This record gives sequence, C-alpha cells and structure tokens, in this order.
Amino acid sequence: MKTKVAIIGASGYTGMELMRILAGHPHVELTAVTSRQHVGVPVAELFPSLRQVVELSFMDNQVAEIAGLADLVFTALPHKAAIEVVAELHAAGKRVIDLSADYRFSDRALYESWYQPHTAPELLAQAVYGLPELFRAEIPRARVVGNPGCYPTSVILPLAPILVSGLVAPESTIVVDAKSGTSGAGRGLSLGSLYCEVNENFKPYKVGNHRHQPEMVEQLERASGLTPQLLFVPHLLPVSRGILSSIYVPLARSVTGAEIEAALARAYGEETFVRLLPAGTLPTLNAVRGSNYCDIGYVLAAEQRSLILFSAIDNLVKGAAGQAVQNMNLMLGLPETAGLLSVALAP
Amino acid sequence: MKTKVAIIGASGYTGMELMRILAGHPHVELTAVTSRQHVGVPVAELFPSLRQVVELSFMDNQVAEIAGLADLVFTALPHKAAIEVVAELHAAGKRVIDLSADYRFSDRALYESWYQPHTAPELLAQAVYGLPELFRAEIPRARVVGNPGCYPTSVILPLAPILVSGLVAPESTIVVDAKSGTSGAGRGLSLGSLYCEVNENFKPYKVGNHRHQPEMVEQLERASGLTPQLLFVPHLLPVSRGILSSIYVPLARSVTGAEIEAALARAYGEETFVRLLPAGTLPTLNAVRGSNYCDIGYVLAAEQRSLILFSAIDNLVKGAAGQAVQNMNLMLGLPETAGLLSVALAP
Amino acid sequence: MKTKVAIIGASGYTGMELMRILAGHPHVELTAVTSRQHVGVPVAELFPSLRQVVELSFMDNQVAEIAGLADLVFTALPHKAAIEVVAELHAAGKRVIDLSADYRFSDRALYESWYQPHTAPELLAQAVYGLPELFRAEIPRARVVGNPGCYPTSVILPLAPILVSGLVAPESTIVVDAKSGTSGAGRGLSLGSLYCEVNENFKPYKVGNHRHQPEMVEQLERASGLTPQLLFVPHLLPVSRGILSSIYVPLARSVTGAEIEAALARAYGEETFVRLLPAGTLPTLNAVRGSNYCDIGYVLAAEQRSLILFSAIDNLVKGAAGQAVQNMNLMLGLPETAGLLSVALAP
Amino acid sequence: MKTKVAIIGASGYTGMELMRILAGHPHVELTAVTSRQHVGVPVAELFPSLRQVVELSFMDNQVAEIAGLADLVFTALPHKAAIEVVAELHAAGKRVIDLSADYRFSDRALYESWYQPHTAPELLAQAVYGLPELFRAEIPRARVVGNPGCYPTSVILPLAPILVSGLVAPESTIVVDAKSGTSGAGRGLSLGSLYCEVNENFKPYKVGNHRHQPEMVEQLERASGLTPQLLFVPHLLPVSRGILSSIYVPLARSVTGAEIEAALARAYGEETFVRLLPAGTLPTLNAVRGSNYCDIGYVLAAEQRSLILFSAIDNLVKGAAGQAVQNMNLMLGLPETAGLLSVALAP
Repeated sequence: MKTKVAIIGASGYTGMELMRILAGHPHVELTAVTSRQHVGVPVAELFPSLRQVVELSFMDNQVAEIAGLADLVFTALPHKAAIEVVAELHAAGKRVIDLSADYRFSDRALYESWYQPHTAPELLAQAVYGLPELFRAEIPRARVVGNPGCYPTSVILPLAPILVSGLVAPESTIVVDAKSGTSGAGRGLSLGSLYCEVNENFKPYKVGNHRHQPEMVEQLERASGLTPQLLFVPHLLPVSRGILSSIYVPLARSVTGAEIEAALARAYGEETFVRLLPAGTLPTLNAVRGSNYCDIGYVLAAEQRSLILFSAIDNLVKGAAGQAVQNMNLMLGLPETAGLLSVALAP
Repeated sequence: MKTKVAIIGASGYTGMELMRILAGHPHVELTAVTSRQHVGVPVAELFPSLRQVVELSFMDNQVAEIAGLADLVFTALPHKAAIEVVAELHAAGKRVIDLSADYRFSDRALYESWYQPHTAPELLAQAVYGLPELFRAEIPRARVVGNPGCYPTSVILPLAPILVSGLVAPESTIVVDAKSGTSGAGRGLSLGSLYCEVNENFKPYKVGNHRHQPEMVEQLERASGLTPQLLFVPHLLPVSRGILSSIYVPLARSVTGAEIEAALARAYGEETFVRLLPAGTLPTLNAVRGSNYCDIGYVLAAEQRSLILFSAIDNLVKGAAGQAVQNMNLMLGLPETAGLLSVALAP
Repeated sequence: MKTKVAIIGASGYTGMELMRILAGHPHVELTAVTSRQHVGVPVAELFPSLRQVVELSFMDNQVAEIAGLADLVFTALPHKAAIEVVAELHAAGKRVIDLSADYRFSDRALYESWYQPHTAPELLAQAVYGLPELFRAEIPRARVVGNPGCYPTSVILPLAPILVSGLVAPESTIVVDAKSGTSGAGRGLSLGSLYCEVNENFKPYKVGNHRHQPEMVEQLERASGLTPQLLFVPHLLPVSRGILSSIYVPLARSVTGAEIEAALARAYGEETFVRLLPAGTLPTLNAVRGSNYCDIGYVLAAEQRSLILFSAIDNLVKGAAGQAVQNMNLMLGLPETAGLLSVALAP
Repeated sequence: MKTKVAIIGASGYTGMELMRILAGHPHVELTAVTSRQHVGVPVAELFPSLRQVVELSFMDNQVAEIAGLADLVFTALPHKAAIEVVAELHAAGKRVIDLSADYRFSDRALYESWYQPHTAPELLAQAVYGLPELFRAEIPRARVVGNPGCYPTSVILPLAPILVSGLVAPESTIVVDAKSGTSGAGRGLSLGSLYCEVNENFKPYKVGNHRHQPEMVEQLERASGLTPQLLFVPHLLPVSRGILSSIYVPLARSVTGAEIEAALARAYGEETFVRLLPAGTLPTLNAVRGSNYCDIGYVLAAEQRSLILFSAIDNLVKGAAGQAVQNMNLMLGLPETAGLLSVALAP
C-alpha cells in the first residue's frame, strides 16, 4: 500500500524535479499537483519530459482538497506564500515538507530580519531542519520539515565537521565563494534569467546580502556550537544545474590531510549521499548532475595552515527535491535512499 | 563633419547591437537613443559592455525631439509600433531605417494578412527593401528603408542567384530548414527565452506559420521573377547569435559544381559581405559571429540533381544591425563597408 | 539470481552510459568492464559520476577472461575493432550486443562499401538488428545483436510507419535534416570535439557521405518493402546529448492529420518508449535527455501534401546504451522496460 | 608607411586572436604567420572567420626568414619553445613581444623553479613585463616584452593599487578565487578540453600549484613593495572566453568605499582599458568579451574590514593578444589604443 503524496506549487523547476523523482519512487504515489496559474492543464503539457510519466493535471491550490488526497504534502511555493499554506495543511493533520525558507529558521527574529513577519511562529518553532546527514534524529517524527536551501546544503555539509573538529582558527573569516547554475533562480520571468543574459556569462550577485547566509550560520552554530564568520559570495554559472562551493578555512595550526579526512569520515563515513573524494581528487558538477550526491574534496595550502573545501551538488536534487524526498523517506519509515539512487547524468 | 544619427527603441538586443557598431563608425555620431521604459537611465547601466563607449542616457520616444537631434533615425521598435513612428519621422523630413517588419513588404495585402492593418500604406509603397547585395540601386535615395528580417537575409542571399540561374526544377518544393540563435527572440520576457528552457535544448517552432516566410517569397520573386514554393521550418539553437540555414533545392537537371559556383559568383563575386566558400567547405556560425558576413557553401547530391545550399550569418549583424548600418552607409554616400569590417569573434 | 553481464570497451561515453543504466537495473549484475588504455584503473577515477556506484576497475580486453565472468557481453568498441571480438565471444558461447556498426548490416557488400572487409561474414548473416519497436520478434533468440546507430534510430522510427502507410509520393526525395549533440562524436581526442570549437557554434558535416545513411535505408527497406531516396544531412549541435531529426516527406496526395496519426499509432500505440505527441506539439531535446524515449511529432504543410516528421532521442540512451539494455531485456526474457524507466532530466 | 609585423606560432587561439585584432589595426601590416604543423595552409582554411581578412598562408617557423619580413614579431609559442626563438629574433635585431611565460619573470631562479632552465638569462634580465597600466614607462624602449599571463592580468590590476594604498592587513592571506573560460587551455588536444567534459560542468583545478601564482606575486611585489600571501585557486568555466576573479582582501582597519575608490582611481583614473565600476555595480564577462577592457568592481563586507575585489577580462584580449597589441603600440610610438577600441560582443 503506497503512501499518497501531493505537491502544492508544482509548476516551477523544484516542482518538476519532485515529480521526476517521485515518478520513480517505489513506495509512494503522487496523487495531486497544484498550480494556481495552470489549473486544469495536464502536467505533460507544461513539462513534456513527464509525458506518459505523470498523468495528472494541475489542480488549484486548495488546501482542503489536497488534504483529502494525500497524507504528506510537499509545498514548493515562493517564500512567504508557504507560511499559511503549510499552517493550514498542518492544521488539517497533514505532514508537510516545505521547500521554501519559511520553516527553516529556529530563530524567528532572524527569519523576520531577512524575510518578513512570520505569521505562524509556534509552528516555526516545531519545524525541523531537514538536513538528514547532520540532523537525522529529529526528522522521522517531524510534522513540518523545513527543507534546506541549496547553497546552505552545499556549505554546511563540508564545513560543519571541520568546525566540530576544532581545527579552525578562532575569530577567523571563512570565505565561501559559491557558484550556482541558473535553475536556482527558478522558472519565473526575469531579465537576469534570459538565455542571452546568462549564456557565456558569469558574475557575482547579492554579495554580502544573500538570504542563505543567515541560514548557513544558524545551522553551522547548531551543528558545531561555534559561530563562524562567513563571507558568502554567490556567483551565477552558465549551466542549468549544480552548485560548486569553494570554502577557504584558516586553520588554528598546521594540519595534516589525515586529520581533515578523519573529521569528514567521522561525520559521513556511513552516509550514502555524501561522497568523500580521495586526496588529490576534487569535485565537479558533472559527477553529481541529476543525482542526490554531495561530493566533497579538499586541499591544504599555505604550509597546511589553510584548508580549502570544495563541494558539489545538484541544486535541484540534493539542494531541493532530492533532499525533500530523503526527508520524506525518513518521515515515512522507508529506506532513506528509496527512489534516490539514480546516477548522475554525465556528460 | 559627422552625420548625426539616433535610435528609437534602443533597449533591445538590436538596439544594443546598433550602438556597438555605431560606436566604431568613423563617419557618424550617435546623438540620441530612446527607450520608453528606461527614460533617464544611462546606457551603460543597462548595457555594461557600452560603459565609456556610449555616454548617452535613454530618452523618451518623442519623435519631435529626436527629429531635432538627428538626420537619420534607426527605429528598432516591435512590429506595429514602428508604423506610426516611422511615418512621423518621415513627415519631419528624416530618413529612416526601420528594423521591424512594418516597411519590408511591397504587397500591402500580404503584410496585412500576416501582421495587422497598415496605417501608412503610401509610405509603405515608397519604402525600399534594404538588402544591398540584391537591391543596391534603390537604397541611396530611399527615404525609408525596410531592413530585412534575419531569416530572410539568410535564405534570400544564397537562394536568389540559384533561382535566377534557371537551374531549379519548376514546381518543386524547396525545403528551408533554418536554425537560429536565441537573441533572435529578443530581450522581452518570455518563458521560452529563459536560460533553462533553451540551454542544452533544441526544437522546431512556428512550423509552417512563421512570418518571415512571406517576406522571403516576396523578395525571391522580385529578385528572380519566379515564385518558389518554400517549406520554411525554423528551429531554436542554444547559442546567443547566429543563423544557419540548410536549403534543399531540387534541380531541373544534373548540374555541375562549376555551374553553381558561377551562378553565385555572378551575384556576389564583387561583394565584400558575401563570402562564397570553396567547394567542400561549409559554413559555421563561428566564422561569422559578430561580423557582417554571410558565408555560403553548397553540396550537390543525388547524382547532382539536388543542391543543398548552406548559409551562415550573425542574426544581430548581417541579420539586423549590421545590415542597417550598411544601408545607412549607402544612404549617406559613405563607403559601404564603413564601420562594418570587424572580424568574427571565434572562438 | 542476477544475470552476469560485462562491457568490453567501456571507457567511452557509450560505455559510461551503459554503466550508468546497468547500475540501476534490478535483474543483472555488471561483473567486468574493460579498457585497453586504462587497465587497473578504478572506474570512478575515470568517471567520477560512478563513484560508489560502480566499484570495478577496468580490465584488459581479454575475451577469454571476460567470457568467464559474464553470460552476456556488450561490446562498445570502435567500428572494425568489434568484428573479431564479437566473433570470439560468440565462439565462446556468449551472447553479444554490439554497439558498433559491425553487425548492423544484412548486406555484407553494403557494409564493406562503407566500412571495410568483414572478416566474420557468417556471423554477420546471423546477427539481428536490435530495433525492438520494429523488429522485436527476432531479438529474444538472437546470439548477436547489432545495436542501431543513433541517427538511424531517430530516422527509422518516425519514417518507417509512414512508408508502410503508402502515403509517400513514389520516387520522391525525402530530406532528413538531422542535428546531433556532441557526445555522438565520442570521447576521442579531435580538434572538432574541443569545447571552443563546438560551443556557440553550429554546422553541417559529412553531407552526403555519412555512414548512417546506408544503415537507415537498408532497415527502412526491410520495414516497408520500399526503397526510399533519402537526402541525409547531419549537423553538429552545441549540446552534450540529443538528436533531433526533421524529416520532409512528399506525400502522394493530400493527407489528413488523422491518417498520419493512425499510421504512427498502428506502429507504436502500445509502445512504452515511443511517445506520439498530440497534434500541434513538437519534440524537444529537453523532453528526452537521459531517457530511453523517442518523441515523435508532425506537421502537415503545402496543402497537406507535405509531411514534416520530427523526432527527438537521447543519442546515448535510445540511440545507444538504453536501446542496448532494451535488447538485453528481450534476450534475457526480462520485462522490456526494466532499468529503463528513468525520466528525462530537464532542465 | 605601415610597420611590418609577424606572428610565430599562429595556429592556436592566441595566434588567431592576434590576427583578428591586427586585421583591424590602422598602422601595422601583418606580413607573415607561422605554424610548423600547417606549413603552406591558407589561414582561412584553419580559421574560417579570417577568410578574406587574412590572405596569408602559414610559413614554417624559420626565424631568419621571418626576420626578413617583419620589424616586430609576436611569439605565440608554448612555454619553453619560446626561449630560443625569442633570443634568435633578438639577435637578428628584431623587437619581440612574447606571449609565453618565458620572458615574464625578473627572478630567473623563480622562473626555473616553476618552469625549466632558462637558456637565455641575460635576455630574460633585459625583458620588460608588459602590463602598461602599471609599468608603462619601460615598454616603449623594450626590445623584448614578456606579455603577462591571463590570470595575472586579472589579479594584478585590481589588487596592486589596494596593496599600494596600505589598507591591507599585514601578514594576511588574500584569497584569489578565479574562474576562466576554456580558451585559456589552448587549442591543443586534451581530454579536459573536450566539449562534453566542459559543457554544463565547473570545477577547480591546479589548486595551489598553478604557475601563474609566482608571476602574480612577483609583479605585485614590484608594484607595491609588499609581498602578499596569495591563495590562488583557478576554476574552469563552461564559456569560451573570459576570466572573472574574486579577490578577498582582509583590511588593516575599517575602510570606506571612498578610500577604495580613491586608491583605484589614483592608479587608473586616466586609463582607457581599465573601467572602474560605480559602487554597487559588479563586473560580468558579458561586458568585456572580445574587448580589451578590464572591469573592476568591489564590495566592502564584515563591517568594512573585508574588501572583495572583482575583475573581468577577456583572457584572449586583455589577457593575451589585446595586451600584446597595446604593448606593440607603445613600442612603436603609436596611439596606445590603436586597433583596440572594439566594443565587447554582448550577448
């Protein structure tokens, strides 16, 4: 007997990706997808890759109706729009995985300083941050999971174990130079997302004021007990999918590769979806595109007093829909990797 | 003493390209550019490639004001919007090169069946189709030039001399399989122009109902006295610039390469901007990107009874702004190649 | 009990793709992969996407050794190199799916006129052309399957049913304007495959002398009893994966859309991997990338006397490795779709 | 009377770019180009963009013969190969601009520790580092110019004035996270330069051991009197052209934007080819592609105690051939911008 799941706000890239992954999932059944803008339109009309795969049509975003069709609901709405919808689904007894930022923060004030007033603060307080490799214990019983942002996933995973290890120089600034594919900007119409603006181009953006920075810091604090000073600089890559983060960590002392590898292995030695690359091997987007893996590599420099961590993920999979399904698997007591073992598409 | 020129509707890719080319033109001075949407904004803010190159700010589309600032005006407005603006500029005594479709057709009814009612039919009747290699004689004295469409330029140039040669099988269907870069779709916001929709993708579109087809046919008739039956199928390429057209011509008899080359050389042997490739060499977009060249190559097949013509242009240069400047040069009695000899940017 | 399979010549893109697909196959086990050039190298070192997915190292191309490790072998060697290897595997009692052209032709003379002398003609005579949707019956008992070429797959599938329908004008020339992604050129080093030569570029190549043309014609004859005159013109697309073919078919008379749809539905109405698009919908590469689907659409033009067929496949999947696995499933009596239902990766 | 110039080693991307730029130069004439591999081949056959633009054929690399044909010679040979050729040209009384690394270093030992023994050390000692904006005075009389590397140009230009300003925290590590297009890897055949390996991909490479690092450090020392500690990490971008460097500079104290802008303006306020972007505007590759500009922008972060500098250049123009022509102009007493004012090609 398959569990019934639904997606509210399924007409963006994250929604499409959820449908792609869920279509191959052995233990759940996708029963409803919604899009206010495309009510009544067959999914295949909007997303031809899903023809004969997802036979549904988009419904309106009626929470009551959706609640009657599914036991667990993914919300893939824009920030702010999700707050109320998640609260209503919760009130209707549904479990929810929210892919917006609205339920990711523990600190309401922090959320409000970067986004807007939160109208469901008690629910925010209950919500669980869905990064299984670091916070797995809380997820199975969660009623609402705040699914991590794409950049935070790519930064927290490599950096948290190094902070935990005590090797980082205190008071130091950690530079996070991150590069993301364009699907991270979503399927909305904006000049900056036009083909001719992105193709053959590359540029930094939102330097010093990207909203993923406080999310990273809050979770790194939670994971390590330390408050890192991050200088987070995102850049836009002319690729459809993928984030590669280069993270520059001043060390407290000269450190060996074995120490770094031990710190990472302690955290992820048993994890399926975090691949620790052997010394001398560095991540590439090609190795993760379309997959739920996070690849992590490192280099020691400056007489081994500087550590450079590199991570690569697919922003739509481990950075969004894949991680959401991983959380769903934990919530439903299914094998954590169910539906998520597809290999990266390279080239 | 430089001639003063202006651009009305300069915030799209065609307008940007006109500014790029005019910035390097030795004999004219760009005195005004307009954009209803960006009044008062410095050009460099919208188009950072033009920083310290074009020091103007966008003005409103006030014809009277522009007419006072320039002797010749380029109109790079959307179809329909251009009709009235061109007429007003003409009434103000200005010479105009219009980059929309509004002044390209000789046959008003044909225009109206594909576009909309034409509110300045007498001016349409006077306007000259600005394809210099075939219709150079009329351009110098033209008051209004209808600048050719990008696809028509890429098809008429290779095909007209072959029709003229009498080698084409009568009553035959000529397949025109054309592939265009995405800048041809303009800088407007549309889902189909988003990076993630175009990148790594390829597709046919508007098959059998693209408005460039009647334009091609009308001009081919004019050039050759024959009415070709074209099957025109455009496709969208994941590149920013360039059109490559593959044109399949059934021949009346078995024909030699020398005959084809002679027909092309008769038309273009003295032309700077049409490069006839040697037998065995075929066009590529790399060879024309950013330049005003049209490269033409051919293959004979099926016992030399089928001719395949290939042409490559940069849709923004020879297919739009470059050709417009070529027309301007002719209208102003300047060397036809002035400002237009920059070499293609490869890779 | 899983069937053991091996891949000889696994260091190219086709080999990599076979590994990707087989890694997710529920009923077979990949026991050996070979590469003369990389003997002893772990697969993950060459193909980081396969880290922790394929734990093998490359072996030498020793047929005897491989024969001891697998019951069915994929050969992904260059043309010519495969002839002997396949023959040796066959002599060793192994079933073989050969992804080169060496076992695709029924007509030995035809093969030899386009390739080289065939040193195992009796085996060639027994080999089966592995295009399941048209020639499924012969595959289950085949000892050697010649896996179809990528272009032929993209052309034969849409065109065969139309030829069968009797709607095509006799003696007419069918233009096949095909566009392929660059992975079709393989992983070998050649100037034409360099990033800077392909990126932002587009061009025709091997016009009138591509070796996939005789393959198409032979199989279309077999499927329809007619000998079509094809004018096959391949072009190189700046994408990694995908073939889109535009096929221009002169019709014997004015035909309705319903007739075309009926002809296609008769052939593929029950097929999983051929998706017939509704009237007005045309294929795109985005809809098939990474999947085993062939999408087919059409347009009628010229007073319905011309048919334009469009097909899209992923050249590495339905055009190579996916189709090979589909053949394997048939040969092993497994569900034909096993391991092949992954959805296209879009964007 | 135009000065005669030649290019030795003209079959790579740098050679092609030199030809493109020199073709539009008003004061020099390109009289000879060489390529050992393509002796006798017309330039247009190798580089179709240069058809009817450069009418030469490649000659052999015979220094004596070239010396008879030109007064100034560009050498665009691989590192090491250039040492002797430059020395011979010098001995023949020719002025030389060398685009390899062989004449860039003042410190012979430093060169030899990163490259190989230098067999013309006395000439190395005389050679001038050709970065006009910082070291213009020495260039006009130079006999041999070592043309800067692409990464060093993109890093030294923004960073030198900041070091000079005294605002940088002493003993601090400056992170240089640089991203380069693929033409930087040259036109040689290597797996890592294949389209399918680069397209949709992104990755760091040569972390901590790229040979451009000592070059940067030596010139920054020369320009500022300080020895910066750089952590230089190059990455490979899926674009043909362009380098964007993100440079993270710890400051000695809290600094204002006005101070940064003053430091940059002091160095480059009068320069044509360095564009200082207004506060809040950051560089993009689109703004410089095909042009000789270096765009520089900045952000202050971490309570204004961290400076992030961003620079964008076209690696083949300001990072190679354009800068070489700028040096030539200075050496020949021509206007420094002659032939170099073409606007970036965007989109």
